[in-house]
Amino acid sequence: MDDIEIDEVATPELDDPVLIEGLPGVGHVGKLAAEHLLEEFDGELVRRVYTTEFPPQVNVDGDGVAELTCAEFHAIETDGADLLVLTGDHQAGSNKGHYTLTTTFLDIAEEFGATRAFALGGVPTGELVEEYTVLGAVSEGGLVDELEAVGVEFRPDEPAGGIVGVSGLVLGLGGRRGFGAACLMGETSGYLVDPKSARAVLEVLADHLDFPIDYESLEDRAEEMEEVVGKIQEMQDGPAVPDDDLRYIG
Amino acid sequence: MDDIEIDEVATPELDDPVLIEGLPGVGHVGKLAAEHLLEEFDGELVRRVYTTEFPPQVNVDGDGVAELTCAEFHAIETDGADLLVLTGDHQAGSNKGHYTLTTTFLDIAEEFGATRAFALGGVPTGELVEEYTVLGAVSEGGLVDELEAVGVEFRPDEPAGGIVGVSGLVLGLGGRRGFGAACLMGETSGYLVDPKSARAVLEVLADHLDFPIDYESLEDRAEEMEEVVGKIQEMQDGPAVPDDDLRYIG
Amino acid sequence: MDDIEIDEVATPELDDPVLIEGLPGVGHVGKLAAEHLLEEFDGELVRRVYTTEFPPQVNVDGDGVAELTCAEFHAIETDGADLLVLTGDHQAGSNKGHYTLTTTFLDIAEEFGATRAFALGGVPTGELVEEYTVLGAVSEGGLVDELEAVGVEFRPDEPAGGIVGVSGLVLGLGGRRGFGAACLMGETSGYLVDPKSARAVLEVLADHLDFPIDYESLEDRAEEMEEVVGKIQEMQDGPAVPDDDLRYIG
Amino acid sequence: MDDIEIDEVATPELDDPVLIEGLPGVGHVGKLAAEHLLEEFDGELVRRVYTTEFPPQVNVDGDGVAELTCAEFHAIETDGADLLVLTGDHQAGSNKGHYTLTTTFLDIAEEFGATRAFALGGVPTGELVEEYTVLGAVSEGGLVDELEAVGVEFRPDEPAGGIVGVSGLVLGLGGRRGFGAACLMGETSGYLVDPKSARAVLEVLADHLDFPIDYESLEDRAEEMEEVVGKIQEMQDGPAVPDDDLRYIG
Repeated sequence: MDDIEIDEVATPELDDPVLIEGLPGVGHVGKLAAEHLLEEFDGELVRRVYTTEFPPQVNVDGDGVAELTCAEFHAIETDGADLLVLTGDHQAGSNKGHYTLTTTFLDIAEEFGATRAFALGGVPTGELVEEYTVLGAVSEGGLVDELEAVGVEFRPDEPAGGIVGVSGLVLGLGGRRGFGAACLMGETSGYLVDPKSARAVLEVLADHLDFPIDYESLEDRAEEMEEVVGKIQEMQDGPAVPDDDLRYIG
Repeated sequence: MDDIEIDEVATPELDDPVLIEGLPGVGHVGKLAAEHLLEEFDGELVRRVYTTEFPPQVNVDGDGVAELTCAEFHAIETDGADLLVLTGDHQAGSNKGHYTLTTTFLDIAEEFGATRAFALGGVPTGELVEEYTVLGAVSEGGLVDELEAVGVEFRPDEPAGGIVGVSGLVLGLGGRRGFGAACLMGETSGYLVDPKSARAVLEVLADHLDFPIDYESLEDRAEEMEEVVGKIQEMQDGPAVPDDDLRYIG
Repeated sequence: MDDIEIDEVATPELDDPVLIEGLPGVGHVGKLAAEHLLEEFDGELVRRVYTTEFPPQVNVDGDGVAELTCAEFHAIETDGADLLVLTGDHQAGSNKGHYTLTTTFLDIAEEFGATRAFALGGVPTGELVEEYTVLGAVSEGGLVDELEAVGVEFRPDEPAGGIVGVSGLVLGLGGRRGFGAACLMGETSGYLVDPKSARAVLEVLADHLDFPIDYESLEDRAEEMEEVVGKIQEMQDGPAVPDDDLRYIG
Repeated sequence: MDDIEIDEVATPELDDPVLIEGLPGVGHVGKLAAEHLLEEFDGELVRRVYTTEFPPQVNVDGDGVAELTCAEFHAIETDGADLLVLTGDHQAGSNKGHYTLTTTFLDIAEEFGATRAFALGGVPTGELVEEYTVLGAVSEGGLVDELEAVGVEFRPDEPAGGIVGVSGLVLGLGGRRGFGAACLMGETSGYLVDPKSARAVLEVLADHLDFPIDYESLEDRAEEMEEVVGKIQEMQDGPAVPDDDLRYIG
């Protein structure tokens, strides 16, 4: 096997498509957001990317059939813009792998005529988030105004540790080859999978690219997560009522 | 030395041979099963595979002679089918190494005319196993029925973490190049070398490929392991009789 | 992306320039010293070096614009000598990467006509430093005398663990290709960013290369660090006055 | 820099030389033994091997001059046999590096006409050693008898974990290309640098190759180590006499 192998599943004509990257990362925000796009729209699988940078792993589906782990591009036509959505279960396994893999991803996006890219992700706050701000970073200053117009916040020198992984390189390598690229980072605690942060990211993206999208299934996942959080808090605090009872007895 | 070096020890004519992979993994189930095949049948060493992916290591035999660590293919003729059994002491040392090494293994199997492959292994349950179920995963859906017919269980989306290492790639890479491949995973606690799980895996394999095989030596190893488990439990529980004595005294 | 990519930003004529390396290391001494040179002199960015050996990372500037992490060469003309100052946020990510990256750095320096190199860094003492000695090591014995003349100390077989990273290789690989190279290591505790040690290193460098330089901004940073150290000591010792109060009460 | 660079310092004519490998390992037995050969005989440096597999490091000598870390071959003429002694401060930094580096070492040995190789090392016993047995392993069975004749012990399947690193590969790769290779492993606790074990290894080597050698300087190092061990035991046991005194006072 070559270091990178690309299955060309389909090559539809797309109209100025926008690359949307949503690989795993902080709070799985980018991955949740990208997968929600695939759920809500009638997308078409166009490319599978296999690489020796991914773990040597297959995943077993509902019928017991194993699929070699890969990243996938789906083409989606929305009312606002054509999207090329990149999803997968893994980032690269080495520094160099991140560079070569992101280069491949940008090559594929260019092949479909993309000149714009959005890397979706989360930015950890370390505490439970009440209001889901979306932080932005761009490959060229001209993009700041139009993103601020849809509510993206830009804070000087933030995030402090920079942006790492494929998302960072979509900006860094994308910018170097002329992409108009932005990273949209939903604030999230960093401790939990965060569908609400994913929704916040999708809202600014949909607003910016001007396509309608429904969030019901993402809300359902958010509610499931809240139940999980509730149970965790319960376990930490101890049950409220029995405690009272005990005092009463005491 | 090249990254991979293959010693062509012998190249017998084989009749539609089946690749059987049994490298080290959970409970050493696959390794025990493959080595039991070598013990029970009069196999012939056909290939040695040396690679810089293995540790820089020699093993010393009973005469003080050192052998460079390698993986080996033995050809075995059974009443049911010709087997090409892959054994060794190591998996690869890196993500990429797993891919290149499995590619080499599949190349060798193809060279002998193999179009089917079974990756033998264990799946950890985290608790002592009473009944040794064999879980299956396949490279193509058509294989499910015939494996269920010999008692292999298929559970949707299991094992949950996918199948990793050479076994996973025998399915993933094997499937991509047209092999009819299956992974047979014996349930095992995951804490101990498990000859009983290896027997369970071999039973479904022998049933499926229709060859008779004796399990006595594997039973002996299972009994040895049970003595080990018994001693461990004894050490944890404390000795039974002195305890009674103490009660009596008390 | 190639393993190493060089942006040729400018190629001014320099007069026998001296390579000054100041990448991150012990006490950030070398980095602080090199960055102080960039602050004090009107330098010109001449090269950016991108490499897959650096983390896959972008840093966000004050306007929200992301820059791919890289190492930079600035050309500086001082009254004493032309300098080619190498700075950056990272060392290489692997043994091999250190060798290939330092080779590239020396190639660039040679391209500008450099035949001399100074690697700036810190040497850890494990305790708070009162007097900031600068320890030296050279690629050829002839350099010892002139460096001792400006106060650099040479101690047999020190530092005991050798000199590692890009600084070590500027000497090792630089020496092998004919550079007159020296490492100037300011003593530093090793626990804190140390602007005073950086000043000590710069003083011997400026004395040796005969250029004037102001240290005010570095002094400001040193004072900030001393406040930090003071607060840390306070936290460890406990507050002085309340302690007295307690004795009084006692 | 290339992955491996060889400085050809000198190429004397040698008479059927024997490769003696003594890189760092258990108890530094092999390194001590090889360095003792260099001390006792009037050897000539013939090759330096630099590689990106070694740490990016220079060592500073007594005059403050830095030398890039490398492995060295010295040619030694003894009354019994010509030796090609390989020493250095490091093993390789990766699995693959061990293979490529040992291949290079064997290439150099072949260039000088060597067909025999001895890898010197230690084998850990986990307890203080009273009598220093030397354990052997060979690349071909024919070597066992002549080594047993000089006191080397061969124990079936030992050492249990195989022999790793360059020593293991001198046997494994050396044997594959026709070297008559043996590993001589001095028993050693594994906790301390062990000059006595190094002497035991050298004694069987000198006996086998029939050259006289003095051990005085190695004995001095052994006495130093015994003082160190004595002090460590003292610290663990507590001082004997003051303890008595205290009892007396009490």
